[in-house]
Amino acid sequence: MNEWNNFQGEKWKKSVNVEDFIINNYHEYTGDEKFLSGSSKKTNRVWSRCQKLIDKEMITGVLDVETRTIAGIDNYEAGYIDKRNEVIVGLQTDEPLKREMNPKGGINNVVKALSSYGYQMDKDIKEHYSEYCKSYQDGIFDAYTEDIEKFRRAQVFCGLPEEYGRGKILGDYRRLALYGADYLIAMKERDLKRLKGSINFAMIRMREEVSEQIKALKEIKMMASRYEYDISRPASNAKEAIQWLYFAYLATVKQNNGVINSFGRNATFIDIYIERDLNEGIINEEQAQELIDQLIIKLRLVRHLRKAEYKEYLIGDPTWVTESIGGMLDDEKSLVTKTSYRFLNTITNLGSSPEPNFTILWSEHLPANFKSYCNKLAIDTHVIQYVNDDLIRSKYGSDYAITGSASPVKLGSQMIYYGASCNLVKALLYAINGGKDEITKEVMVDGIAEIPGDKLNFPLVVKNLAKVISKFMTVYADALNIIHYMQDKYAYESSNMAFLNTVSERKMSFGIAGISTVADSLSAIRYADVGVVRDENGIATEFSCNKPFPRYGNNDDSVDSILTDVVKLLAKELKKQKLYRNAEGRISMQTTVDNVAYGMSTGATPDGREFGGSLAPAANPSHGYDTSGARASLASVAKIPYLGVCEDGIANNFSITPLALGKQKSEMILNFDELIMQYFKAGGQHLNINVVSKDKLKAVQRNPDKDNLLIVRLSGCGVRFNNLTRAQQDELISRTFHDML
Amino acid sequence: MNEWNNFQGEKWKKSVNVEDFIINNYHEYTGDEKFLSGSSKKTNRVWSRCQKLIDKEMITGVLDVETRTIAGIDNYEAGYIDKRNEVIVGLQTDEPLKREMNPKGGINNVVKALSSYGYQMDKDIKEHYSEYCKSYQDGIFDAYTEDIEKFRRAQVFCGLPEEYGRGKILGDYRRLALYGADYLIAMKERDLKRLKGSINFAMIRMREEVSEQIKALKEIKMMASRYEYDISRPASNAKEAIQWLYFAYLATVKQNNGVINSFGRNATFIDIYIERDLNEGIINEEQAQELIDQLIIKLRLVRHLRKAEYKEYLIGDPTWVTESIGGMLDDEKSLVTKTSYRFLNTITNLGSSPEPNFTILWSEHLPANFKSYCNKLAIDTHVIQYVNDDLIRSKYGSDYAITGSASPVKLGSQMIYYGASCNLVKALLYAINGGKDEITKEVMVDGIAEIPGDKLNFPLVVKNLAKVISKFMTVYADALNIIHYMQDKYAYESSNMAFLNTVSERKMSFGIAGISTVADSLSAIRYADVGVVRDENGIATEFSCNKPFPRYGNNDDSVDSILTDVVKLLAKELKKQKLYRNAEGRISMQTTVDNVAYGMSTGATPDGREFGGSLAPAANPSHGYDTSGARASLASVAKIPYLGVCEDGIANNFSITPLALGKQKSEMILNFDELIMQYFKAGGQHLNINVVSKDKLKAVQRNPDKDNLLIVRLSGCGVRFNNLTRAQQDELISRTFHDML
Repeated sequence: MNEWNNFQGEKWKKSVNVEDFIINNYHEYTGDEKFLSGSSKKTNRVWSRCQKLIDKEMITGVLDVETRTIAGIDNYEAGYIDKRNEVIVGLQTDEPLKREMNPKGGINNVVKALSSYGYQMDKDIKEHYSEYCKSYQDGIFDAYTEDIEKFRRAQVFCGLPEEYGRGKILGDYRRLALYGADYLIAMKERDLKRLKGSINFAMIRMREEVSEQIKALKEIKMMASRYEYDISRPASNAKEAIQWLYFAYLATVKQNNGVINSFGRNATFIDIYIERDLNEGIINEEQAQELIDQLIIKLRLVRHLRKAEYKEYLIGDPTWVTESIGGMLDDEKSLVTKTSYRFLNTITNLGSSPEPNFTILWSEHLPANFKSYCNKLAIDTHVIQYVNDDLIRSKYGSDYAITGSASPVKLGSQMIYYGASCNLVKALLYAINGGKDEITKEVMVDGIAEIPGDKLNFPLVVKNLAKVISKFMTVYADALNIIHYMQDKYAYESSNMAFLNTVSERKMSFGIAGISTVADSLSAIRYADVGVVRDENGIATEFSCNKPFPRYGNNDDSVDSILTDVVKLLAKELKKQKLYRNAEGRISMQTTVDNVAYGMSTGATPDGREFGGSLAPAANPSHGYDTSGARASLASVAKIPYLGVCEDGIANNFSITPLALGKQKSEMILNFDELIMQYFKAGGQHLNINVVSKDKLKAVQRNPDKDNLLIVRLSGCGVRFNNLTRAQQDELISRTFHDML
Repeated sequence: MNEWNNFQGEKWKKSVNVEDFIINNYHEYTGDEKFLSGSSKKTNRVWSRCQKLIDKEMITGVLDVETRTIAGIDNYEAGYIDKRNEVIVGLQTDEPLKREMNPKGGINNVVKALSSYGYQMDKDIKEHYSEYCKSYQDGIFDAYTEDIEKFRRAQVFCGLPEEYGRGKILGDYRRLALYGADYLIAMKERDLKRLKGSINFAMIRMREEVSEQIKALKEIKMMASRYEYDISRPASNAKEAIQWLYFAYLATVKQNNGVINSFGRNATFIDIYIERDLNEGIINEEQAQELIDQLIIKLRLVRHLRKAEYKEYLIGDPTWVTESIGGMLDDEKSLVTKTSYRFLNTITNLGSSPEPNFTILWSEHLPANFKSYCNKLAIDTHVIQYVNDDLIRSKYGSDYAITGSASPVKLGSQMIYYGASCNLVKALLYAINGGKDEITKEVMVDGIAEIPGDKLNFPLVVKNLAKVISKFMTVYADALNIIHYMQDKYAYESSNMAFLNTVSERKMSFGIAGISTVADSLSAIRYADVGVVRDENGIATEFSCNKPFPRYGNNDDSVDSILTDVVKLLAKELKKQKLYRNAEGRISMQTTVDNVAYGMSTGATPDGREFGGSLAPAANPSHGYDTSGARASLASVAKIPYLGVCEDGIANNFSITPLALGKQKSEMILNFDELIMQYFKAGGQHLNINVVSKDKLKAVQRNPDKDNLLIVRLSGCGVRFNNLTRAQQDELISRTFHDML
């Protein structure tokens, strides 16, 4: 293979093994960022056109929609931003930011989404699509049980992928660059041949799926050929490697409208090609940076058409185009390369942007220069987030990536079935209210004893809570089993799966919202004699307590241990569930969508939270109650057990004022570095940090033009502050902004 | 319920139980046919219009196709033949004999079928259907294994339901008349509620299916309302009962283009309504007959659009609208009613017709008058066939019906997955040729020893055959598992299933073609030292034997036992297979489609059959070799074990000359009756009898106008002789026409 000239190693040449290729060929870079180049003229031209379009889109919500053709890998003509200046090509449709219609979740949902923005669907599609095809939404509702429907109505669940793609299934897109489509097709054909033996249900499904993957690879070839690229063979230089890689990814966002559209872990892989080209004098640093800048521009343009009300759940139109950067090969050597810098340098070259969702795989052992560079960027822009590489690598090895906010998968051999989240505060209230919903008054969980008297008895509440949680996990698992059955049946993501091993491990994520409110409430009941007023249905309408009680977020074991016990109970109950396709259930402490929405449909709680008050996002302490400083807050979150318990991820969306970090930039960077180190060494798994003051946010809220590009890290992703609804902005501002370490 | 006035019994009122309703309310009729009425003026008008259309259709192949709308329960406007004179209404589309396009098996197949007859599909459908939807054909080919593809190429399998509906799933359509749609919907909703517990794969599938059934029932209501009927409530008189029943059935032939479209066992059920109406003076006999005549006219119009080449497999456009008539309640009392006669009287009133496929459930204990009436009709018209009620009832009880040619199911609680057939003669040749196909020379079955020398060694051939059969049944089961998985996935017959119990037993039929050639060949090898000439690949090209040897069809145990041993081996190997949805495999000795086509792609055989020679249909002895008279031929076939072995049915398509039965009609009827009795008492399961001479057939072949309506019983169904291809006519004529008893 000419394309592999000068590449070392043998194993990766014999079967698909990108990790082995990387280990054998990458060059760690421990230097600083001084080598980086600014953006090229071409890049500036392309990006300036995009900026104009994005600004226009900010005003109208949606820039354009292709209303005559439905979504698909190869359903559109080639599209360009500025053809002459684009070095990396490929758009979701034939125009930048023109969105696709994806009817697999129900044509009426698309019709509604279109009409939210003043568009109309092509008459033929509208008339005939549902006559011909069933949507997965119809399939899901056909199979939902009464319990699931009841839990949905009570908003115990919210944002489940019933009408939009589940996303979160991350392919190893590097494979296309390294091997070319024909080899990948041949490997899948070989797999298909080997899938023999008893032709039972599971085998038939698998055989059909692999055939679909092969078709997808062939369609990707066709799609690439519209852009005049032949991706049959391996990429032969850096430009092609980036282009192939991007085509693979592009196919997935053309085909599916998943809630999460992560990109993988590509910088170090690409670096190998760039190094070779630089050594051979084919490109210089400016050109190398140009390739990366233009790739990142493309990733910034990923969009899906959503109904307007979707905004309530998925705040600020996020796409979770997560790219994992850095991390260690082992305790000695990092996977940081110059291209790790080049990726991050796009923030400087192109300006802040919520996507892609740069995620630093942080390790104590990362090169100091690199950490310092990342920290500077994080403090200045909030465009990057951190996960604990030392912790994750101990189980997932050195070639994993994050999909979504904080969920790791081994690249190419694991996938996650997305699970949105359930509202755990409802579970607590059901435990207090004899199994009844505090708003609908309906009995939600049978066999829950009423709590007698006008004080809440801690052991009784805990006993009830355990029963309620058992029911919650069962109904939640039932719902996800049905959803993923139907997504597989009606909207199989063949393009993502084509870049996974035919036999891959399946994980299923069970998101938990409101854990801090539950922990604080249990603490109040235990330590502060919570009084209760009940209505004629025996439902608590008011709680009172006169004593102070320990609150989660202050590094106080007396309450932090309560939270940990609840989390362990969740994990234990999850283990009992039999999941679709033998997936392994993983508790996910990540709210992506829902902490504000959930709060609005949840009654008052014993911790003093009022009816309708927002819940804290993800694993965060409740707004304003982690009053013992940044370190204490982080220490509390770091106690939540990750491995084997909350393994889908524990997102911490943390905010600190610039002043708390220090007055000088260098002091700030040092303190920032220390905060992260302490958090991760204590076992923290994920950290989003906003370094910003409430005053700044309030100022931009009053006058959006003040900082139109302000990115805030909300819940495992960045969003443009000006893209948030007023309620969402208020919620963010009401969070704790630590003003002391 | 007013509709149930004067109906007796309680059990059937508490849950769906049509059998209990019948037992409690029907009146056996043991008298003769003298009460029967001719056809009414209205009927004559309606039927005469149909005859004209059918004659026109005979010339063009297809009368008309609805090319702008795809098939569905409620996708067409109401259609009429002659609205003023129609007492029973409802057509597949909006015009009589206008066929539907059913694209679930692949839009290109429909396009081809259309172009066979000069039609063009609506542009939008053609353009978009496959863009939106996947066909079950695509699903099937995606999942097929290399072995299955190899076996298909070698024509070991033929006519598998890969591009047309599987059919054969018979609902209990009487339920709609007795209970009305709303009650059936309520019962299905109750079932859905009860489907809880572990929400695993099978449960999700079941829940979705029941939801689809409920939707189907609602659609049937809509469809009926186009004809100005409200079928929500039970039918209140005979006309409504017949109309409701027919709407239920009509929905299934609107929705699906199955190869088999059986109707059930309805005469005695309808009789209860007619008796009530007659007693109440609402109708008279002429009107009763008019209702039945007009129902039967509708059943004669069922059509599906097929590709022209389909004719090679499904001879004469048959639809297997099988209606089972007669049978016993127990050994004492028959289920024969006046309406059993009225159904058969349509043959007289309307003239001969291949459909519906009237099937007499024959018992020794049937009223003599009824038997004699049936026999007369059979002799004169060949429009009816017989199955052995005593034999089938011993296992299936008294409320079963035949679907297709000879396959019994308990009504409402059992279903059959159709399996077409496999060519067993190929198995024998593979056993002789070291596992290689005699035409393609490809190795089809591994590990088959070559037979040394120039004589065929019987024990070695038998040993090889056992191995080959084991492989055949495995590959066949794999193919059917895949086909039925995909038919369920992409073309679930919700309208048929809506009239089955939610939990019904599943059978899967495995058809065997060429058994007589296999038996005779093994007999030759065993008893007549078969010499063999082999080509350079070791493949036998010629067989020779100088001695005579016993042949199947002459009541000679020395060969009949060989056949029985092979059949038992097939059943044993089938039992080892793990079938889709835990279906029970049943060997089916019924060729519907294929004995001519199979023969053409099968090499010469040791019994003297030449390369390309037709195989005998179903369980028939080989053409012209059952030379010992009708009784001996029947005795051989009757030896094939039915219960527990060949339980899907053993079709015997038997021909006898009128003269062999006698000169006088009365003598003929007596002899006919005795033949049947002897055959069934000896254990025969199914019998088609053509009472016709070869000369007559040859005369009509030469001059079609001589008897344009001549019906011949070909292979478990009747067809118009003039509808056959020349090759098919020749094959029929080459069969044995017994000219002595």
